[in-house]
Amino acid sequence: MRAALLSVGTELLFGQITNTNTVYLSQKLNALGIDVMYHYTVGDNPERLAEMIETSFKDCDIVLTTGGLGPTQDDMTKEIACQVMGDELVMHDDILDYIRKRMLAYKAVMTDNNIKQALLPSRCRVFFNDAGTAPGFALDRAKPDCPGERQWIACMPGPPKEMTRMFEKSVQPWLEKLAEGCLFYREIMTFGIGESDLETVLFPVIDGQTDPTVATYAKDGQTSVRVASKRATKQEAEQAVAEMIGRIEELIGQYIYSFDGESYAKVVAELLIKKGLTVSSAESCTGGMFAAALTDIPGVSECFDRGLVTYSNRAKIEELGVKPDTLEKYGAVSEETAMEMAEGVMRASGSDIGISVTGIAGPDGGTEEKPVGLAYIGFVYNGKAECRKINRTLKDRNRNRNNAMLSMFDMIYKNIY
Amino acid sequence: MRAALLSVGTELLFGQITNTNTVYLSQKLNALGIDVMYHYTVGDNPERLAEMIETSFKDCDIVLTTGGLGPTQDDMTKEIACQVMGDELVMHDDILDYIRKRMLAYKAVMTDNNIKQALLPSRCRVFFNDAGTAPGFALDRAKPDCPGERQWIACMPGPPKEMTRMFEKSVQPWLEKLAEGCLFYREIMTFGIGESDLETVLFPVIDGQTDPTVATYAKDGQTSVRVASKRATKQEAEQAVAEMIGRIEELIGQYIYSFDGESYAKVVAELLIKKGLTVSSAESCTGGMFAAALTDIPGVSECFDRGLVTYSNRAKIEELGVKPDTLEKYGAVSEETAMEMAEGVMRASGSDIGISVTGIAGPDGGTEEKPVGLAYIGFVYNGKAECRKINRTLKDRNRNRNNAMLSMFDMIYKNIY
Repeated sequence: MRAALLSVGTELLFGQITNTNTVYLSQKLNALGIDVMYHYTVGDNPERLAEMIETSFKDCDIVLTTGGLGPTQDDMTKEIACQVMGDELVMHDDILDYIRKRMLAYKAVMTDNNIKQALLPSRCRVFFNDAGTAPGFALDRAKPDCPGERQWIACMPGPPKEMTRMFEKSVQPWLEKLAEGCLFYREIMTFGIGESDLETVLFPVIDGQTDPTVATYAKDGQTSVRVASKRATKQEAEQAVAEMIGRIEELIGQYIYSFDGESYAKVVAELLIKKGLTVSSAESCTGGMFAAALTDIPGVSECFDRGLVTYSNRAKIEELGVKPDTLEKYGAVSEETAMEMAEGVMRASGSDIGISVTGIAGPDGGTEEKPVGLAYIGFVYNGKAECRKINRTLKDRNRNRNNAMLSMFDMIYKNIY
Repeated sequence: MRAALLSVGTELLFGQITNTNTVYLSQKLNALGIDVMYHYTVGDNPERLAEMIETSFKDCDIVLTTGGLGPTQDDMTKEIACQVMGDELVMHDDILDYIRKRMLAYKAVMTDNNIKQALLPSRCRVFFNDAGTAPGFALDRAKPDCPGERQWIACMPGPPKEMTRMFEKSVQPWLEKLAEGCLFYREIMTFGIGESDLETVLFPVIDGQTDPTVATYAKDGQTSVRVASKRATKQEAEQAVAEMIGRIEELIGQYIYSFDGESYAKVVAELLIKKGLTVSSAESCTGGMFAAALTDIPGVSECFDRGLVTYSNRAKIEELGVKPDTLEKYGAVSEETAMEMAEGVMRASGSDIGISVTGIAGPDGGTEEKPVGLAYIGFVYNGKAECRKINRTLKDRNRNRNNAMLSMFDMIYKNIY
C-alpha cells in the first residue's frame, strides 16, 4: 500500500513552522508497512489545494492530509476534499453534540464557526478529536483510472497534539485494516568513517540489494546505515534485517556504536551507568559541548559529577593542576597538556575516568606546526593513560568542535566497551 | 517570481529526519520576495524524481532541490536534473581540483566516488561547497509551454550545514539577481516574550500591512520579528524598514537584543569584548550549554576564561566553595545556592562577572515545592548580586535547559548593556 502526505497551510510555505507532522506520520506509516512515497505541502488556496489532492493520488492508494480543518475562513480542507472525492457536506448531529459538550467543558461560547465543524462529508468515517474541536474523517472514491479499485483520503487537524492523538486513537486502527505487509528497520550508527568510504566498503551488500535495503546517511559528522525489510510478517522482516546486520558487522564492526540510531552521548551514558563507572571532563576547544551533550541525557548524574571548561592557560593551571612548565614547553595544544588535563579532572572529581580535549577550533589561531583542526584527546582510567591526536586541518569551527566532542565519546566507548 | 522546494531522500519518507531545509529556504526565499508555492518530497528513485521535478515546475519559475548530491549510489539528483533540463554531465576540472584539495586537507583518500562529484551539467552555474565535497549548481531551460521564457533548477546538498552555507554564499546572491526589485530586511531578535503575545502587541503594525511586511517567528524558545520591504531601490527599502523598526521598538523595545538575527551568545560575547569585561560560568542543570554556546563564537577567549559544570552537590562544594550548610538548608535548586555558585566561579577565575544556573531540567526529579522547570540564575558583577527565578513547570528537558541557558545570556545583557 502506497501513501502520500499532504500538509496544508500557508504558514509552512513561509517557513514559520517546522513540519513535524510528516516526520511523525512517515514513521508511523512505515511501521505499519505502508510505503510513504511523497510529501506535499500547499497553501490555503482552494484551487491549488484541489489540484494538489489530485496530484497526491498519483501512484498512491491513500492520501493523508494535515491542517486546514479549523473553524476559520482559511480552513478549507474539508470542503475541497469533499469536492474532489465526489461527496457533499451534511450536518452530523452526533458530532455537533460532541463539539457542544467539549465547548461546555471549556466554558466557551458555541459560535457559528463551531457549528460548521459538524458539517462533514455524507459518507465519511469520522475520527473524533478529543484534543481540540475539529473532527477528522476518511473518505473513499473509485480510482479514476481503474474504477474497480478504491482510493482513500484521510483528513486530520494540523496542530501536532490533536493530530497525533487522533492518529493513535482512530486513524491507525483504521489503517491497520487497510494495509498489508510488515516493515522493520534498524539504524546502525558509526563514527570514524566517512559516508563515501562506508559505501565503498559496503558495496558488496548494497549492490543489487532489494530486500533488505541498505542505505547510508551523513549527519553532524557521523554516518549511519539504515537496514530495512518488508515481509509478510514482522518476524520475517526482523530476521532478514538481523541477517543483513550480521554481514554489515563483519565489514564495518569496528566503527559501529549503536544499532538503534542513538546519539553517541546516550550510548556512552548508558554504558557508563551499566558498568557503574563515573566520568569527569576537562574541555578547552569544545568549551563544554561534551558536558552539555552528556547532560542532555536524563539520569546522567549517576555517571557524571562535573566538567571543567578551562579555556585559558591560567584556568588549566588553577582548575586542573596542569604544570606551567608543560604549557610553556609543549603548548596548550599538545599531548602533554591533554594528559595533564585528564589526570587533573579525574583527581579533582575522584571519578573513575578522566577525559579531556585541547585543540585549535579555528577559523583563526593556527600555525604551520599546529594548524586549525589539530586536537588532542586525553583519556585516563584504571592506571591506563592514552592520547588520541586529531589532525583534520579543516577551517570550519563548528565541525572541528563537533568532531572533537564526538571523539571524546568515541575514546571512552572504545576503552570501556 | 514563484518557487517550489523539492527535498530528495528516502530518509525523509521514513521519517528519520525532520526537514529543516524547507523551513530555512522558505524563510529565505520569502525574505527575498520570492513566493514559495509548494514543498515536495520524493525518495531516491530515478523515475519518481524525474517526474517530481516536472511536477515541481508547475506554476513555478524556479525549483530548489536539496539532497541526493552526495558521492554514493543512491545520490542521483545531479543526473536526473541534468536529464530533465536537457543537458549532459561533463568533467569540470576546476571542481575536481577543488575537491582534491579538500580531500587532501581531510587527509582522506580520493575515491572514484569523489571524482564523480566533479561531473556536472555542461552549461550549469556551479555553487562551491566549502563545508563538504558535493558541489551544487543551477541550470535553466526554456519553459516547455512558453519557450520564450526560462525556468531554473538550483540543486543543493541535503546536510543542513552544507546547504545553508552554500545558500548564503552562492545561491542567495544568484537569486537576488534573478528576482526583481530590491528587497531589504532586518530580523529583530527578542527574548522574554512569547510569539502569541508578541503578535498581540504588534497587531497595530502587522494588521493590513503590505510593505514593509512584519512577521513573527518562533525558534528554540526565542521569538523574532522580520521586517521586510521590497522597493525600486535599496535605499527606499532600507528607509521603509528603518521607519517600521522605529515603531516596533516603541512597542517591544525592552525585549529586543539584536536587529540582525544574531544569537544571544554572539551579542553578549561582542558586548563583553567591547566593554572589556570578562565572565565565568557555573552551570548545573544546563551542564555546559552556556559555555558551549559562548565558545561557539570565535575570539571569545578575550572575555571568557573558564566555566565550571558542577552537576553534583560535591562538585558545587569543591569547585565553587558553595557551603554544605546552604545546600542542606535551601537545597541545590535555590536562590542561595545559585548566588554562591556565581560568587564562587567569579572568585576562582578573577573574572568581572560571575553567572550561574541551578534548576530541575526534568523530565523527572521535580517535587510539588520544586517542580520540573524551576531554575535560578545567579549574577554577580561589580558589587551587585542578583538572582532571577524561572518557573515554567514544563516537562520538556530540552526546552527547560535551553531557556535557562538563554536566561543566563539575558541576565548578563540586561545588566551590562
